[in-house]
Amino acid sequence: MKDIAAPQIPTYDDVIAAHARIAPYIHRTPVLTSAYMNELTGAELFFKCENFQKAGAFKVRGASNAVFGLSDAMAPKGVATHSSGNHALSLAYAAGRRGIPCNVVMPRTAPEAKKAAVRGYGGTITECEPSTTSREAVFAEVHARTGADFVHPYNDPRVIAGQATCSRELMEQVDGLDSVIAPIGGGGMVSGCCLTLSNIAPRVKIYAAEPEQADDAYRSFKAGHIIADDAPITIADGLKVPLKENTWHFVSQHVTDILTASEQEIIDAMRLTWERMKIVMEPSCAVPLATILKNPEIFRGQRVGVIITGGNVDMGKLPWMT
Amino acid sequence: MKDIAAPQIPTYDDVIAAHARIAPYIHRTPVLTSAYMNELTGAELFFKCENFQKAGAFKVRGASNAVFGLSDAMAPKGVATHSSGNHALSLAYAAGRRGIPCNVVMPRTAPEAKKAAVRGYGGTITECEPSTTSREAVFAEVHARTGADFVHPYNDPRVIAGQATCSRELMEQVDGLDSVIAPIGGGGMVSGCCLTLSNIAPRVKIYAAEPEQADDAYRSFKAGHIIADDAPITIADGLKVPLKENTWHFVSQHVTDILTASEQEIIDAMRLTWERMKIVMEPSCAVPLATILKNPEIFRGQRVGVIITGGNVDMGKLPWMT
Repeated sequence: MKDIAAPQIPTYDDVIAAHARIAPYIHRTPVLTSAYMNELTGAELFFKCENFQKAGAFKVRGASNAVFGLSDAMAPKGVATHSSGNHALSLAYAAGRRGIPCNVVMPRTAPEAKKAAVRGYGGTITECEPSTTSREAVFAEVHARTGADFVHPYNDPRVIAGQATCSRELMEQVDGLDSVIAPIGGGGMVSGCCLTLSNIAPRVKIYAAEPEQADDAYRSFKAGHIIADDAPITIADGLKVPLKENTWHFVSQHVTDILTASEQEIIDAMRLTWERMKIVMEPSCAVPLATILKNPEIFRGQRVGVIITGGNVDMGKLPWMT
Repeated sequence: MKDIAAPQIPTYDDVIAAHARIAPYIHRTPVLTSAYMNELTGAELFFKCENFQKAGAFKVRGASNAVFGLSDAMAPKGVATHSSGNHALSLAYAAGRRGIPCNVVMPRTAPEAKKAAVRGYGGTITECEPSTTSREAVFAEVHARTGADFVHPYNDPRVIAGQATCSRELMEQVDGLDSVIAPIGGGGMVSGCCLTLSNIAPRVKIYAAEPEQADDAYRSFKAGHIIADDAPITIADGLKVPLKENTWHFVSQHVTDILTASEQEIIDAMRLTWERMKIVMEPSCAVPLATILKNPEIFRGQRVGVIITGGNVDMGKLPWMT
């Protein structure tokens, strides 16, 4: 396992190298705007649509950077990971493109659509219980058995450098942003935003948005050290995992604030986005809009980049249909 | 009423004039592609995304052309129409932009989201029963009372010229199309495709896609004359209305074939599009993909433009959740 205590911090040069490495395997996703959403929030919102990304989520950026950065000597044993979903299928996608094995440990409760997609890309799934403890135990066995390269879903410097290409694109696509807001779970996307923006646009404020029911990053941020929950329960299934030392490095240094939203506020923001913007996105992606609607005074009059992180949804289990 | 027997046929010059007139009020909508859909169908599909259009549907093109083409003398009495939904809210949107009244007759069974949007744009709704007979009777009363200009949802040459701007954009956005396929209800969008393509790309084949349970255009096409059903029942609520003389003119002269799909095939294609392309679209828009999946031999190896006509969906009533 590469989860060591001393942070491994990627640089902006790593981001530039990652972007060149992964460009053939990812989409440069579009930025959408909505007159309705602007009127509703009093801000100018620019939605970076990683739900249209390859494999359906931004996670393919970091996964591809790790997979295509492997040496030819290392590659044949393949890659392995544990993930609540999108990192798993992104790693399976990237490994499939390179033609190497991919072993993933997924909670048995992960959305069926995500499991099917992992298998569709050629990945092998081993199921665990939906807790950090179980996930790490099952993974240790799989990792030892396969000898594959471990690509952590967010605490890996290659992954953080890959995710950082998303905000790099956003800055090329939209001028004059005042702030950027992204959902926070383990902190991979937010760390990527910190890495890019602190280097090329240090005046842009960075906000992270988190479910109230999985607010360990919020509490960590306020406490000044990592606080990890084992198995929080939230509709935003991509945001249940805790910060680790590499993401904490970025979050603690560069984030302006972490805002939280209730389950109902997340569901309402998700449904509103589907209805008005005509895009399919995951519950996790609705957390930033939910917090903007809840804290209009923070964003009013600003140009705000909003990262829509993914679109892999179980259509049979939409949260407003229960 | 302007429903007279002699066709009123717009020309391609009308399309060019319409495009210039409506450009400030509409989006030039994006064309999306999907490696997954291409693999599944054996064709190269180019989805023209009118679900991202202003007011959520292509209908705003024709409605805006009618509203902004009104003389200053005619405009104060406003516009009126009957519509199963998207034309109503498109006309309300366009009238709102010009600041003139808009009266619409809608079936009481129309999706609540569409009724709310009409009212949101400032339109006034009078409800009727969900049949052509009731709709036309109630409309005659409203029309006589208001003296407004009648903008038929599809049998109006201004509307057909407006809808024709959609395929004009598509031809600018995608090179070398072999065919274009669009849903057919009253035939406004298909007539617009015929008008544009017969003038600027006469070799491109035009297909229309229709629900089996509302297949009056299919039967008309085979019989060689208009056959109208009064109140067909289909999940594709935008496609229940019959052809009229102006749209029949184009459909009978320029359409290569009309293909049909069952309710379940439509629902499956709709869900597949939401899941894989991450876009919200109406059941009506899924009919073309359903017919392509059903008739792969027609489209295999071709470059096919697929018109996604709208995205106004009742999120509380998704067809796979019943």
